[in-house]
Amino acid sequence: MRAFLDEDFLLSTKTARKLYHEYAEVMPVLDYHCHISPQEIYEDRKFDNITQVWLGADHYKWRQMRSNGVEEKYITGDASDREKFQKWAETLEMAIGNPLYHWSHLELKRYFGYEGYLNRDTAEEVWNLCNEKLQGGLSARKMIQMSNVTLICTTDDPVDSLEWHKKIAEDDSFTTAVLPAWRPDKAMSLEKPDYLVYLKELERVSGVEINSFAALVDALRKRMDFFAAMGCSVSDHGLAYVMYEPSAPETVEKIFAKRLSGDSVSPIEEKQFKTAFMVELGREYHKRNWVMQLHYGVKRDNNGKIFGELGPDAGIDCINNYAPSSEMAEYLNALAKTDELPKTILYSLNPVDNAAIGTIIGCFQDSSAAGKIQQGSAWWFNDHKTGMTDQMISLANLGLLGNFIGMLTDSRSFLSYTRHEYFRRIMCELIGSWVENGEYPPDYTALERIVKGISYRNAVRYFGFEHNVPAAGIDL
Amino acid sequence: MRAFLDEDFLLSTKTARKLYHEYAEVMPVLDYHCHISPQEIYEDRKFDNITQVWLGADHYKWRQMRSNGVEEKYITGDASDREKFQKWAETLEMAIGNPLYHWSHLELKRYFGYEGYLNRDTAEEVWNLCNEKLQGGLSARKMIQMSNVTLICTTDDPVDSLEWHKKIAEDDSFTTAVLPAWRPDKAMSLEKPDYLVYLKELERVSGVEINSFAALVDALRKRMDFFAAMGCSVSDHGLAYVMYEPSAPETVEKIFAKRLSGDSVSPIEEKQFKTAFMVELGREYHKRNWVMQLHYGVKRDNNGKIFGELGPDAGIDCINNYAPSSEMAEYLNALAKTDELPKTILYSLNPVDNAAIGTIIGCFQDSSAAGKIQQGSAWWFNDHKTGMTDQMISLANLGLLGNFIGMLTDSRSFLSYTRHEYFRRIMCELIGSWVENGEYPPDYTALERIVKGISYRNAVRYFGFEHNVPAAGIDL
Amino acid sequence: MRAFLDEDFLLSTKTARKLYHEYAEVMPVLDYHCHISPQEIYEDRKFDNITQVWLGADHYKWRQMRSNGVEEKYITGDASDREKFQKWAETLEMAIGNPLYHWSHLELKRYFGYEGYLNRDTAEEVWNLCNEKLQGGLSARKMIQMSNVTLICTTDDPVDSLEWHKKIAEDDSFTTAVLPAWRPDKAMSLEKPDYLVYLKELERVSGVEINSFAALVDALRKRMDFFAAMGCSVSDHGLAYVMYEPSAPETVEKIFAKRLSGDSVSPIEEKQFKTAFMVELGREYHKRNWVMQLHYGVKRDNNGKIFGELGPDAGIDCINNYAPSSEMAEYLNALAKTDELPKTILYSLNPVDNAAIGTIIGCFQDSSAAGKIQQGSAWWFNDHKTGMTDQMISLANLGLLGNFIGMLTDSRSFLSYTRHEYFRRIMCELIGSWVENGEYPPDYTALERIVKGISYRNAVRYFGFEHNVPAAGIDL
Repeated sequence: MRAFLDEDFLLSTKTARKLYHEYAEVMPVLDYHCHISPQEIYEDRKFDNITQVWLGADHYKWRQMRSNGVEEKYITGDASDREKFQKWAETLEMAIGNPLYHWSHLELKRYFGYEGYLNRDTAEEVWNLCNEKLQGGLSARKMIQMSNVTLICTTDDPVDSLEWHKKIAEDDSFTTAVLPAWRPDKAMSLEKPDYLVYLKELERVSGVEINSFAALVDALRKRMDFFAAMGCSVSDHGLAYVMYEPSAPETVEKIFAKRLSGDSVSPIEEKQFKTAFMVELGREYHKRNWVMQLHYGVKRDNNGKIFGELGPDAGIDCINNYAPSSEMAEYLNALAKTDELPKTILYSLNPVDNAAIGTIIGCFQDSSAAGKIQQGSAWWFNDHKTGMTDQMISLANLGLLGNFIGMLTDSRSFLSYTRHEYFRRIMCELIGSWVENGEYPPDYTALERIVKGISYRNAVRYFGFEHNVPAAGIDL
Repeated sequence: MRAFLDEDFLLSTKTARKLYHEYAEVMPVLDYHCHISPQEIYEDRKFDNITQVWLGADHYKWRQMRSNGVEEKYITGDASDREKFQKWAETLEMAIGNPLYHWSHLELKRYFGYEGYLNRDTAEEVWNLCNEKLQGGLSARKMIQMSNVTLICTTDDPVDSLEWHKKIAEDDSFTTAVLPAWRPDKAMSLEKPDYLVYLKELERVSGVEINSFAALVDALRKRMDFFAAMGCSVSDHGLAYVMYEPSAPETVEKIFAKRLSGDSVSPIEEKQFKTAFMVELGREYHKRNWVMQLHYGVKRDNNGKIFGELGPDAGIDCINNYAPSSEMAEYLNALAKTDELPKTILYSLNPVDNAAIGTIIGCFQDSSAAGKIQQGSAWWFNDHKTGMTDQMISLANLGLLGNFIGMLTDSRSFLSYTRHEYFRRIMCELIGSWVENGEYPPDYTALERIVKGISYRNAVRYFGFEHNVPAAGIDL
Repeated sequence: MRAFLDEDFLLSTKTARKLYHEYAEVMPVLDYHCHISPQEIYEDRKFDNITQVWLGADHYKWRQMRSNGVEEKYITGDASDREKFQKWAETLEMAIGNPLYHWSHLELKRYFGYEGYLNRDTAEEVWNLCNEKLQGGLSARKMIQMSNVTLICTTDDPVDSLEWHKKIAEDDSFTTAVLPAWRPDKAMSLEKPDYLVYLKELERVSGVEINSFAALVDALRKRMDFFAAMGCSVSDHGLAYVMYEPSAPETVEKIFAKRLSGDSVSPIEEKQFKTAFMVELGREYHKRNWVMQLHYGVKRDNNGKIFGELGPDAGIDCINNYAPSSEMAEYLNALAKTDELPKTILYSLNPVDNAAIGTIIGCFQDSSAAGKIQQGSAWWFNDHKTGMTDQMISLANLGLLGNFIGMLTDSRSFLSYTRHEYFRRIMCELIGSWVENGEYPPDYTALERIVKGISYRNAVRYFGFEHNVPAAGIDL
């Protein structure tokens, strides 16, 4: 029996341990997609206690507490932080097999030096230990530095001023690069009631009068230029569904004019508009050599009672299992057939889509980049041991695992960088098992290239961050 | 190499063996969903031979015999029971890796003391041994008692008189509680030709004239009161598909009136009616603190030739892979948004739905019960080692495995309680592997709570059976 | 740690090794579905170098090279064969975990005696070694003979003259049976622009004037008679999608007449026509005791740029995840209800369909053959270790693995027979693990029957090839 969460956690073979400790562990962290606040980084946010860090915005944890029958008062309500922490500790011990069990303990170990395990009885000592460290200087920047993070991409709306990114860039005391990423979901969501309000804001910041679809794209182009000047080379789309419903340019203009006039549009018109929007933006990304991330397969805000009380991001989202691979392939082809497909990363929330995605990406690869079209790392509800393992096995079965750009946190917390450690251990365990079983030779030159690549180097090269961060032997 | 089906069957580690033998094995069995006949329990059915027990109604076995090219004569036809048993023995040896191989041998071992394995050559000795035991007193009640079953929920139509449940309750010589469960599928199936005949029967037993949808719900309410008085706290719906098609009350009344007049309804009307039906009944369950079970993802009676000869439940059903998670989430929200969602268990026949279900249930948990919304145990075509393991891993990845209410037989046979043993071994193997790998600490207080909970205690508490059965340390 | 690809490759237990080396390895190969050219067999094609064999038509490899950022010039373009080989070697080392890694090295070992591993550095020595063997007599026939192949089914259009099959049959110097298989996709694809041209060709070879749907079926019947006379007993359909849209015979005739007149048909008419076509042909197969193979779940030719340059089979196909199990069940029932369902093999390209298929086939088994309805071996994008293992576990969970007809290459290459070895190792590892874990007894009589059956004998019996090939103890 192995000790709980020891230094060889998840590494069952000698080869896996060698790969992890010699190649993976020593690589820095590049977090190319997350939801942390650049303002909090700039201001170097301090925390009074562990509840603020862990339970302030983490809807993964909220869901589990509700699953344990905990009252909302102790989750998002007005109970004291100490009481909330107790309820979380009681919940956690039932979360056997859940990634939160592993993440929470990795965080306690790496950032707070706690070697035990958290449950209803140890909650008090953990509370005291963590708060002492937090009050003793374990701030947002400190957490990032302790994690050896060289670069962070935040998630930003086209209308964002990016003022905090600018301030961070000007602050020489902080060496981690913090770059914006382009997330234009609001500009596409013409079905939303406040769409016209949003367009007004976009008009204001872009200086473009948005009186047509062409003008909308033009306004976005101007903002892309601004984002690019601020170091952005990554976009991200949270698609409610995969769609491909092409129509004539005049049709799209008519739909947009209808919406501008205050009318709502039909479901088919919505699809036609969004298809045109995605095609236009894809072309822009290709021109700028940006990466296009497509996140799909989510149905959000499902519980009307909780949504009414807490709004979005409250732990009430689920997998939407409608995602036609044919429409995804057709969308990518709409760009590829004219050689305008940018580097693209596909993430489905439904793990069932792994194989379909693996085969789609293989259709659109070309010599403009190694691994030009990627399947994104096991995402959100899938970022656990089996989810990550399955995604990597699927990728290996269908494509070149060696070119995989690896992990991202997708997190709102400054303690989540241990998820990169978790990922790397799982990756080394998998690759190590193949070597141990005689399925890949003990060719350590190739294995070092592959493991360091997936841990860090591939992402540096793929996103074109060589000028922002240490390249860590990228050309070896 | 391990001996075949020995006492540590499926338990590969020391921790798994400890968990099973110390915590799981000693717990009684609570079978909260099955299809056995209360009349046969009351009358303590006797059997002449093993073919009657095994092949009389078990369409799992019929399918396998057909897969082996066995003539229908030896399956459901007029061959002798001995001949049928021979054909089954020959089939079984080809069923390597199939749960029937394991179940059959567990049953031979636990109920008949047979230690060998059944094949074409040993069929004769097994036949003789089993029949001797069966004729020597191994009756229905004896099988239940040998299995340490404290409570059984049968499956009953709203029009059922529940007379056998009453007689069993009055019979002090039999200590296992046998409670009815509410299965109103016929009351919802307005598309069926004999729907009006069914309504007449429901009118008769409820005393309510069913001349409107409101009256239908009222009649069902009266029957629910009767079922509740007989100890029922569990409902079950066999949904042909997942649907959510809300409409105005007047629309539903119009659809029902149309059907009452003898007309048939359109597919969309069927969905609207069924949606209203499910919402109304969900509210009633919530009022009564009943559990709502939703079974879906089945396409029944697919082979017209066999259906013509044998009717339903003949081994000719398959997985229906159409099950939109969005509609399931919307249905649950229709109840949750007004705080009328009862405790609910979701079972899809398609294992591909595991992750989607795991994320749906997480959206609707609240403090009215620990694990209020459950993913049901791996069901029907999934109740094998990989199916159960995958369901528990998915549940653990996405929620709190510690609150899982565990196994049910869903069976028509009195010998099926070994499926609980099979399940517990698989559960202990899984949890044991996590402890062995350092993924959960060797905290045996928590592990005992989890393993005993999943084996028995969680179901007692969840269904509210504390007053019917030994609670087995439920508050520890 | 195990040596790379040694004699016990993929066989981790003693039992697995025994099953493989004693039962599986000694069986001949029967390749009942592939895409190799009978002309090349007859003419005993010679190769100048390994690039011709490996990269001439293998779009699996092309995809991986594109995934590695290789320019098309080095894949399908005018670079030298040596340059292309170098690019392939560099790609291969990144393909860790990919079946191409294993297949390529098995091929190097079995046909060329190369014991090392191919990468950028060893490419030169591998190139020289392979070319020496190829130029020294390792021809198409030699490869087939080295692989102990007793029978090959090619894939042939109804209008094919089958002249090469005839010549091979008349050539006593070559003992492997080479039989045609019937692939009438073009006769069903009425939506294609060149459909009428195809019908003219079919008219010519059949001697039937195709002026109605009935006449089309009649022409195909005549060709089936011819194929049967040439030894054919297997059909194959590459379905773009699963459909079941029944209509009246008059409707089908009207649709066909419309198309004959040069008009195009609507999507619903296309489905109606294809449904009728599939039902008519299914009946014909049943009459002739042919096997019907249904391959589905593919979306082809997705990348317009590459398709424009290279045409079909260029490595730009993906999984289509739309495949309603209900329509597949209804189609099979359309034949089964009148007892006209032929032996049938279902293959979906989407591994997610495994469980649904496993339950569908169980509905249609009967005594006309053991394992009459089969789930096909893990196909195309799924023919890797996890894909094969998952398919066999699913089959075992839901049916009788013992009756499985096993592997096929589906290949365009004469070196692909090592895929049978790969499959058999995986199969023996799986079955061996069950015996080792006490899940199946060490009953070597049954195990030999099962392993030899899946490796070879079951296919001989299932397809009725006892008269064409050594039966290898089929009745044991």
